[in-house]
Amino acid sequence: MQQVGIIGIGSTEVNEHWEYSLRELAGFAALAAMEDAGIRHIDGLFVGNMMSGTANRQQHLGAYLSDWIGMPMIEGVRVESACSSGGAAFRAALMAVASGELETALVVGVEKMTDVTASEISTELSTAADADWESDQGVSFVGLNALLMQRYMHEYGWQKADFANFALNAHANGAGNPKARFQRAITREQYEKATMISPPINIMDASPVSDGAAAVVITSIEAARSVAKQPIVRIIGSAAATDSITVHGRKDALWLTAAYDSAKRAYDQAGISPSDIDFFELHDAFSIMATLSLEACGFAERGKGPRLAIDGGIYPSGRIPIATRGGLKARGHPVGATGVYQIVETAEQLRGEAGKNQIENVRIGMTQNIGGSGSNVITHIFSNL
Amino acid sequence: MQQVGIIGIGSTEVNEHWEYSLRELAGFAALAAMEDAGIRHIDGLFVGNMMSGTANRQQHLGAYLSDWIGMPMIEGVRVESACSSGGAAFRAALMAVASGELETALVVGVEKMTDVTASEISTELSTAADADWESDQGVSFVGLNALLMQRYMHEYGWQKADFANFALNAHANGAGNPKARFQRAITREQYEKATMISPPINIMDASPVSDGAAAVVITSIEAARSVAKQPIVRIIGSAAATDSITVHGRKDALWLTAAYDSAKRAYDQAGISPSDIDFFELHDAFSIMATLSLEACGFAERGKGPRLAIDGGIYPSGRIPIATRGGLKARGHPVGATGVYQIVETAEQLRGEAGKNQIENVRIGMTQNIGGSGSNVITHIFSNL
Repeated sequence: MQQVGIIGIGSTEVNEHWEYSLRELAGFAALAAMEDAGIRHIDGLFVGNMMSGTANRQQHLGAYLSDWIGMPMIEGVRVESACSSGGAAFRAALMAVASGELETALVVGVEKMTDVTASEISTELSTAADADWESDQGVSFVGLNALLMQRYMHEYGWQKADFANFALNAHANGAGNPKARFQRAITREQYEKATMISPPINIMDASPVSDGAAAVVITSIEAARSVAKQPIVRIIGSAAATDSITVHGRKDALWLTAAYDSAKRAYDQAGISPSDIDFFELHDAFSIMATLSLEACGFAERGKGPRLAIDGGIYPSGRIPIATRGGLKARGHPVGATGVYQIVETAEQLRGEAGKNQIENVRIGMTQNIGGSGSNVITHIFSNL
Repeated sequence: MQQVGIIGIGSTEVNEHWEYSLRELAGFAALAAMEDAGIRHIDGLFVGNMMSGTANRQQHLGAYLSDWIGMPMIEGVRVESACSSGGAAFRAALMAVASGELETALVVGVEKMTDVTASEISTELSTAADADWESDQGVSFVGLNALLMQRYMHEYGWQKADFANFALNAHANGAGNPKARFQRAITREQYEKATMISPPINIMDASPVSDGAAAVVITSIEAARSVAKQPIVRIIGSAAATDSITVHGRKDALWLTAAYDSAKRAYDQAGISPSDIDFFELHDAFSIMATLSLEACGFAERGKGPRLAIDGGIYPSGRIPIATRGGLKARGHPVGATGVYQIVETAEQLRGEAGKNQIENVRIGMTQNIGGSGSNVITHIFSNL
């Protein structure tokens, strides 16, 4: 497989963008990434998006966007795997470039969720779960995660307050990111007194509905060396795995097999172990998902994820900084864009451009994008060496 | 780029499958293709589908289907590019295998359209056009194609009756295909007296709303040689191109630039010209699309597509047989599945398994899958040599 690197990144602020259309949002990020890369042409476009068909009455985003950014003749498709659509689009583009079929590819993650009601969004999100055995029974995504968190607390003896640091860290980091949805720190008291959504998940355990777009330009390392204006960020590991789409279909609901499996293969490709990872942009759509992801990827023992958070290990100064620019919780979770935001933010850290969020001396960063309740997990490892 | 071949194919009958769910339909085709290939494991799943989010309230088909066919741990994504989603999923899988990242991939195209009303389907189909400039102005897909056909007739001096042979050929071929949606020939009189939908398009110029699933297993030629039970069908050309998503955004609405461009690149890859193609599974969603595709791919001069049909050049015994198993018109057009049906049928012809539809002495077949009104075109060339 040909070596591939990131040569350009771009993103919009995550917000309620009522003033911009879907194509404008996506276009802003796409053109920013191309300008950052210093190139005017790409060979293929891969769009990560989950819900534009319903929320914006627009599918066919490959043609829709290639036209808008002034390259109507390039190839262009949408890749969808629920909340991991962004990571999946990146991986499809990576394989296209690695095959030699395309020299340069543009990956754009975009989601515009606030044009419709919260109830419509909740219904649309539920299409990521099993229509027959989950959604039609009335369980929402918050509901599924609440069941997991409740069971986790019961099984391992944690209290709800023990999860506070996931939200505190995310919001503190969001305060340093001018593109984050929430740019203010929160207090422990605010976490503990936050409005309950679906017990034990309160509003500080859940990531917000948002609009946003993020984009990256990738090319072969060989081509990158001759065109790159920016430091090249190398992709040293990439793997994806599914799991039973239903939570009840898994042997052990508290162990994310797909996260474990994709991380293990990515580590093997990169020839490294968890101790070599300097920071981790994980999928903290809910506090419980952050916990389970840390455990599956080898950063905490089973049932000990909250301990890592309580001890400060997830903070910028800790053993494995997570959500360094706010994560899904504070940067926001524009669904199909999230996986690409994670990659843009990782590239920012590795290029030393993370501003107030910059972690010192970082060499290797990891991203993990999770679709559904752990049923589609895409892991990437990047290096600036 | 590594050489890749098809080692297994499978498909369901195209029909109104009210007795089966989306997962059953897709699963039948997937397991049939794996059984045909004689393998029990694949490394990745690529699902072509356009409208399951709306028509079946189910997205996330990668995890949904990998779970159902008993391989919950493989990677799995959905690829969407409107009516060319099937061809796009195949091309994504091809690049994944060609990169060496996956050894064996399963491509499944599936669409289950008849669970909702025709009006809902029409609205959903319109998400393939531009939401702001086409769909919101009230133009449907039949409407867009009617405008193209009207203009074509005006520009080149053809009468509506001159398009009859596209429907006659498709239905005559469908009569020989036990999996076709319509398995009966039609007469010239039936074509001419058919119910008008959107002038000049009548019901015999348009492909039917349908349910169906088709699947193929691909692997590297090297691996294929050691595992294949069936004759290997080699992929010798693959290319995709977009065009302005709106019809009015094109310099010349009667010339499918994306079809021309993707066909030209596929010919170049294969090192052949149109005269080397023995048969052509084209995208006859409407008679006018068949006409424009034949012209863009070099089988007829501009404005002369109907002449090729009138002279019988598109018949099984003609210069370039098209829609050999019924095409979109008579086999049916389950949107996201169509591109994979085209590839399954091409493999059947190249393996000599097309039954009553078998074309003699075929060596090279081409497929062309068109998304939107010509705005996303994916062309593949296959050989049994």
